[in-house]
Amino acid sequence: MKKIYVIHGPNLNRLGNREPDIYGHLTLEQINQQLQEKATTLGWELDAFQSNHEGKLIDAIHEADTHYDAIILNPGAYTHYSYALRDAVASITVPVIEVHLSNIHARDSFRHHSVIAGVAKGQISGFGSASYELALLAFQQLFALEEIERM
Amino acid sequence: MKKIYVIHGPNLNRLGNREPDIYGHLTLEQINQQLQEKATTLGWELDAFQSNHEGKLIDAIHEADTHYDAIILNPGAYTHYSYALRDAVASITVPVIEVHLSNIHARDSFRHHSVIAGVAKGQISGFGSASYELALLAFQQLFALEEIERM
Amino acid sequence: MKKIYVIHGPNLNRLGNREPDIYGHLTLEQINQQLQEKATTLGWELDAFQSNHEGKLIDAIHEADTHYDAIILNPGAYTHYSYALRDAVASITVPVIEVHLSNIHARDSFRHHSVIAGVAKGQISGFGSASYELALLAFQQLFALEEIERM
Amino acid sequence: MKKIYVIHGPNLNRLGNREPDIYGHLTLEQINQQLQEKATTLGWELDAFQSNHEGKLIDAIHEADTHYDAIILNPGAYTHYSYALRDAVASITVPVIEVHLSNIHARDSFRHHSVIAGVAKGQISGFGSASYELALLAFQQLFALEEIERM
Amino acid sequence: MKKIYVIHGPNLNRLGNREPDIYGHLTLEQINQQLQEKATTLGWELDAFQSNHEGKLIDAIHEADTHYDAIILNPGAYTHYSYALRDAVASITVPVIEVHLSNIHARDSFRHHSVIAGVAKGQISGFGSASYELALLAFQQLFALEEIERM
Amino acid sequence: MKKIYVIHGPNLNRLGNREPDIYGHLTLEQINQQLQEKATTLGWELDAFQSNHEGKLIDAIHEADTHYDAIILNPGAYTHYSYALRDAVASITVPVIEVHLSNIHARDSFRHHSVIAGVAKGQISGFGSASYELALLAFQQLFALEEIERM
Amino acid sequence: MKKIYVIHGPNLNRLGNREPDIYGHLTLEQINQQLQEKATTLGWELDAFQSNHEGKLIDAIHEADTHYDAIILNPGAYTHYSYALRDAVASITVPVIEVHLSNIHARDSFRHHSVIAGVAKGQISGFGSASYELALLAFQQLFALEEIERM
Amino acid sequence: MKKIYVIHGPNLNRLGNREPDIYGHLTLEQINQQLQEKATTLGWELDAFQSNHEGKLIDAIHEADTHYDAIILNPGAYTHYSYALRDAVASITVPVIEVHLSNIHARDSFRHHSVIAGVAKGQISGFGSASYELALLAFQQLFALEEIERM
Amino acid sequence: MKKIYVIHGPNLNRLGNREPDIYGHLTLEQINQQLQEKATTLGWELDAFQSNHEGKLIDAIHEADTHYDAIILNPGAYTHYSYALRDAVASITVPVIEVHLSNIHARDSFRHHSVIAGVAKGQISGFGSASYELALLAFQQLFALEEIERM
Amino acid sequence: MKKIYVIHGPNLNRLGNREPDIYGHLTLEQINQQLQEKATTLGWELDAFQSNHEGKLIDAIHEADTHYDAIILNPGAYTHYSYALRDAVASITVPVIEVHLSNIHARDSFRHHSVIAGVAKGQISGFGSASYELALLAFQQLFALEEIERM
Amino acid sequence: MKKIYVIHGPNLNRLGNREPDIYGHLTLEQINQQLQEKATTLGWELDAFQSNHEGKLIDAIHEADTHYDAIILNPGAYTHYSYALRDAVASITVPVIEVHLSNIHARDSFRHHSVIAGVAKGQISGFGSASYELALLAFQQLFALEEIERM
Amino acid sequence: MKKIYVIHGPNLNRLGNREPDIYGHLTLEQINQQLQEKATTLGWELDAFQSNHEGKLIDAIHEADTHYDAIILNPGAYTHYSYALRDAVASITVPVIEVHLSNIHARDSFRHHSVIAGVAKGQISGFGSASYELALLAFQQLFALEEIERM
Repeated sequence: MKKIYVIHGPNLNRLGNREPDIYGHLTLEQINQQLQEKATTLGWELDAFQSNHEGKLIDAIHEADTHYDAIILNPGAYTHYSYALRDAVASITVPVIEVHLSNIHARDSFRHHSVIAGVAKGQISGFGSASYELALLAFQQLFALEEIERM
Repeated sequence: MKKIYVIHGPNLNRLGNREPDIYGHLTLEQINQQLQEKATTLGWELDAFQSNHEGKLIDAIHEADTHYDAIILNPGAYTHYSYALRDAVASITVPVIEVHLSNIHARDSFRHHSVIAGVAKGQISGFGSASYELALLAFQQLFALEEIERM
Repeated sequence: MKKIYVIHGPNLNRLGNREPDIYGHLTLEQINQQLQEKATTLGWELDAFQSNHEGKLIDAIHEADTHYDAIILNPGAYTHYSYALRDAVASITVPVIEVHLSNIHARDSFRHHSVIAGVAKGQISGFGSASYELALLAFQQLFALEEIERM
Repeated sequence: MKKIYVIHGPNLNRLGNREPDIYGHLTLEQINQQLQEKATTLGWELDAFQSNHEGKLIDAIHEADTHYDAIILNPGAYTHYSYALRDAVASITVPVIEVHLSNIHARDSFRHHSVIAGVAKGQISGFGSASYELALLAFQQLFALEEIERM
Repeated sequence: MKKIYVIHGPNLNRLGNREPDIYGHLTLEQINQQLQEKATTLGWELDAFQSNHEGKLIDAIHEADTHYDAIILNPGAYTHYSYALRDAVASITVPVIEVHLSNIHARDSFRHHSVIAGVAKGQISGFGSASYELALLAFQQLFALEEIERM
Repeated sequence: MKKIYVIHGPNLNRLGNREPDIYGHLTLEQINQQLQEKATTLGWELDAFQSNHEGKLIDAIHEADTHYDAIILNPGAYTHYSYALRDAVASITVPVIEVHLSNIHARDSFRHHSVIAGVAKGQISGFGSASYELALLAFQQLFALEEIERM
Repeated sequence: MKKIYVIHGPNLNRLGNREPDIYGHLTLEQINQQLQEKATTLGWELDAFQSNHEGKLIDAIHEADTHYDAIILNPGAYTHYSYALRDAVASITVPVIEVHLSNIHARDSFRHHSVIAGVAKGQISGFGSASYELALLAFQQLFALEEIERM
Repeated sequence: MKKIYVIHGPNLNRLGNREPDIYGHLTLEQINQQLQEKATTLGWELDAFQSNHEGKLIDAIHEADTHYDAIILNPGAYTHYSYALRDAVASITVPVIEVHLSNIHARDSFRHHSVIAGVAKGQISGFGSASYELALLAFQQLFALEEIERM
Repeated sequence: MKKIYVIHGPNLNRLGNREPDIYGHLTLEQINQQLQEKATTLGWELDAFQSNHEGKLIDAIHEADTHYDAIILNPGAYTHYSYALRDAVASITVPVIEVHLSNIHARDSFRHHSVIAGVAKGQISGFGSASYELALLAFQQLFALEEIERM
Repeated sequence: MKKIYVIHGPNLNRLGNREPDIYGHLTLEQINQQLQEKATTLGWELDAFQSNHEGKLIDAIHEADTHYDAIILNPGAYTHYSYALRDAVASITVPVIEVHLSNIHARDSFRHHSVIAGVAKGQISGFGSASYELALLAFQQLFALEEIERM
Repeated sequence: MKKIYVIHGPNLNRLGNREPDIYGHLTLEQINQQLQEKATTLGWELDAFQSNHEGKLIDAIHEADTHYDAIILNPGAYTHYSYALRDAVASITVPVIEVHLSNIHARDSFRHHSVIAGVAKGQISGFGSASYELALLAFQQLFALEEIERM
Repeated sequence: MKKIYVIHGPNLNRLGNREPDIYGHLTLEQINQQLQEKATTLGWELDAFQSNHEGKLIDAIHEADTHYDAIILNPGAYTHYSYALRDAVASITVPVIEVHLSNIHARDSFRHHSVIAGVAKGQISGFGSASYELALLAFQQLFALEEIERM
């Protein structure tokens, strides 16, 4: 049984309220619940964490290293300048997938570049809350692949 | 009766001690007291908050959305790189005015650009502690205008 | 029943032979077969097309507009400069998802920017051949959402 | 009794007609009248001047040096490239406040930078015609401060 | 009957004398006469104005708003930096076509970019004095189109 | 009798269907027919060619060198990066006029610069299908001028 | 007797575990212990603090101003973008030396520039945990110099 | 007998009053008088003109083409952006020397580049009012050289 | 016996006709014939291919991987932007030498950079048709070296 | 017994005379004497060399490779552009520490970047002549570490 | 009696032979002789020195500090990158005037910027060998001014 | 009989010792000997010179102008910034070919640009010591061509 940690970055606690044209109408609680259900169908455990604090996100990434098998990270606006978060991801061995609700390439030019993606496993952006679910399915593939290699 | 939230960013707790040539001789407490007196003469309530933590400033902006009618924000050095703070301002409906004690355009070149001003109502910089008072008066004008439009 | 068009850009015919450390050991034929099997389990039809010619890729995108319900596009190196391909994607109404085998954000700096992603539905990169499968699943979600909205 | 000079730059004679979504519905005459009334309540004199000519604006700033106690300057589009206007402001001892009707930080990127603000006392932008009134109040504060220092 | 205003920017009064390899051998008077004859054959009136003064060009554009049906503007070197002229064009409702005698894209790199074209109807460059005549013919097409739409 | 070659670049076969707000409602066939009629009234022959393939456009330019007296070229998105197309235009002696349906200076910033215009005779942009007709009229002027010079 | 404050920035709690090729095999506790021993031999007191939180690092710098004689600061990845940390250093009178374990000039290009070094006393990078010890010795020299000047 | 035209650009009428540390204590009248005396000793006539208006400076340059043998031009802040002034200088055959009172290379970085010097005969900067006198002497040399070549 | 493939990029079919000052007076056929004669004297076979189509050039590079021992590639203008061609070269194991007829470093600045050279064996530019012959001789050296290493 | 080579770059022979506010009051001879005394206490030999000649500095670095155990290099202004010096450092196996008297990060922006540091062991800047002594102590640590590893 | 040192930088020994269109037909010896004659008429001594070696030029500047009253420096191509030369000029108290034979602003763009002018007294460029003579006359003025101030 | 001068720039005296993975295992003496043998077979004389001193390289280039028929120049790291070396090459009439042992386009980005190649005859890079031999053969071709033209 796999344990997944979903880490939501700054302003994602505002989901549902915040600019629904861009970010959709679901609240963060609803998204987490959907993800947990999805995880259950995969036979996995899933915990979720949100913070607006760069430091707490770094702490969370560090702690996940020994307690989880995979991290799904939506770094919010920290995506574009938090080299500290990048170093946190680089400092652990648990694989991280970066996700974004909106298509960051179709918005303000400062959102086109991620300083974190370079040390993540991969990046998924533009599918609303489905971006997170696709990350779950991506881990399903990765774990299957590892299984094969281990045999 | 209007409720105003004054949010002071990083290092503003050092006012009075910190580089007085640039930032003036008043302490933050003295500035807050002046603002509260000014607010009282306008018949308003005013609360003030200071933090050096980007995350706490974001939290404060979120919470203000339901408890205050206006925010006066001095983002300190976060002005120049905190896209997370920018997104926090964009995620609420309460109007925000960005203020600066010093004339940021007359200092280091990295201080000439604000990543937050684009989502604020307006920007006032260079008048020392009077920058905050002018923001109060700017809100007085905005509220008057809204009243007229509502009629 | 949905019809999906998978369009592979330049040098992807070399898969299996070409730099396997970066692109994996599967050939393009094997990837296409896997995708067709996956599509069949979803009750869909799937056709695949590869070309090294920018013009043929544009032609393929145009033609897909009337014959397919969704496009999965791996633009290869055209990702980084083909504004003509971008305009082709912008000129059709069928939704397009951009995929990449490798994590383009972890490679040469000229690969960090996509001129196409801004007009795509979303972008998935870094999961090897699973990037394509995740795009299929992303369309499954999008179609389900449309169904709901149509009701 | 203080004498204030309000200098309006290029295209501000078009106010009321010109892109009212950005610049508001008041004409320049109406704004000047409001400012004069406000000045009268402060016990001050106020003259206003508008020109589309960079040279005439420079002349006006020079002349103001001996006839006025303060200048409120809206440099219009000259804000972004007129180093000659900047030098004019630097060449006088009367304090200058730069004002803008619109929030220049929320518009075209070429409007984000002011070549003049660095030699002004401060900058106020984004409050429509109230930007000018706030500049009047800013001068009220500055004069009060000078009084105190002189004592 | 349509009224057309041709506005010539800085140094165009030197035509015929000035660098004839680049700008041709006709004087400005000869060009204006040719344009007036052309306008007469179209049943239109045409006035021409030249100034080296950015401010006078702005004034001319403002005044044209109520007296003319179309403006043909050759902004000369102001093309490349006069945001004030750009704002003047944006502030009126009469359509403006930007013209250049020389092919600005084949000269010094600072001439490759126009800060005005973005708010003009269109741009014609490189045909010598024929650039102006083509602008007349472009307006003929635009007026015909409007007629059709009005019906 | 003159022979004119009209070369349409990538995605122009989509005209009428493709983003009609930007590119108009006429199909490419209708535009070509209008141009042929216009050419006939001038006593000229006119052929038209469209391709999404950079290479075929280069081939067409080369072949035109011996069969046509003038080329009207709309390079579509290749305008902004195809140095190969630029070299093709530079390699022939037949004059080329670059045209654009939309005002490229009023759109995405990557569309503001043409790598081809520097080797063309001139550039006409922003007049919809009339841009092509104006190019025909521009050639009429150029041919008349050559006639005069030859005498 | 001097009191020294060693402030470790983000991800330094991971030392020993984190990319040992770059950062060495010692844990942060071991480094702190070595530093304390070294300080004792110099007859000084030394306290150490680590946080991943930008805000807590700023708080720590502020507090150090009245309790310590010198600060040794390893800002981690905040080195490259935290203008807030820079302002904190500038706001105190206690001298600060910036240290780095790795040679930041030999790594990713975004690590070549420090926004903090400009307001520090000096910078030492590339000597592993010895960078900290060298900072201690640098302070020994600075204190000796001050002593001499005071005499 | 040679006739020299000295053209002073924006803010130079402020000399003596304006920032004397940078520009010296002489007024413009005193400088002009010195130059006229110097010219008389060379057996030449000298006229001087000052304007803050870019347009008037361009007019003056045009008119000088037929009335003077040499122009000494201090373009003030227009040095750094007035391509219109550059074109005016390029449009005449009378030689122009660009002068600056202050050493523009030792001031703000925006003052390091001249858009005019490229079409001037030469540039002299940094010698206060002596910069103008050196330009006179430079013309003396140039005229002597021409004499020799004419022989 | 070695087999060499010479691949000529866009517009090289125009050689002899096209700008002979830059590219010389030989036609492509004459160059190919010279190269074949040279190859024969070395005891090698040599085939040549030219295309204006980026895609066909990529196809040719792919096919060469199994049929030739060496590729001489003149990418023409694709040198400066075709990352797809770069990836094609990177995807094969046959060594590639990049050649240019003209000295690309002495021409337009956009020609100073090659996106392909980084994955080629080496680059030879500026010797007219001799650039190709030098590439042949370079391969002669490389093959000799391999022979030695194999022994 | 270790042998250390101290290499001083351009203008360091001026120490004591040259801008003492920035570089201190000690002459180069005094600094060298202090370093020799320090080395003696460590049981080491130390030679010093100064040159203003880039070539002689490169020669010195080469020669040091076989005669010394460590190099302390202050490259002076060559720090910022001498890639030849960088290559010299890269071409030897003796470890090099880069030192600066002043804090180069707090001076002109062209001094913020070192082209040499990337191939040095580490960098120490801002401690006046103590920067050199700290480099000695850094080597003491490095040698101790090597001893340990050798055991 | 004043002593002047003329320092000629790299490639100036080639004068007369080297590109005479740009640098004139006089040899360096002839220029030096002219300058010596001119100096004699002013009652001064003048020595001249040329070197292609950056280091020797720095040495010469240092030595001049105690033996000469003024330096005329033509840094040749070192103008554009030799920060070491800049530091040499900054390290002495004797005034330095930078001269150039050609108008560096009208040549290759890399020649538009001088890294040395910022620490020189002033700059004179574009007057051929007369540039040096004008520098002599500039020193005549500076010495006269100093005389006056000393009185 | 032709005389060839081979000029080796900085750090090339380290060949054989220095980073053999990049620069090969031959010493400079061995390379020079091979070149001399090759020259002898061509019936030519060949001298070689190496220096780490920019000035001596410039001197050598000047002297070669009257004593040699051709120069083969490997400018080492001076390739990337020595405008003085560029001017030296431009100041002579003897043809110069620039060579590099390594493929400079496949290394650090600062090595991608040559400031010298623009004034050389051509550039050859990436073939180890064979780069020099290819330059010899390139001169053979150039001399043959000149012979033909002379006839």
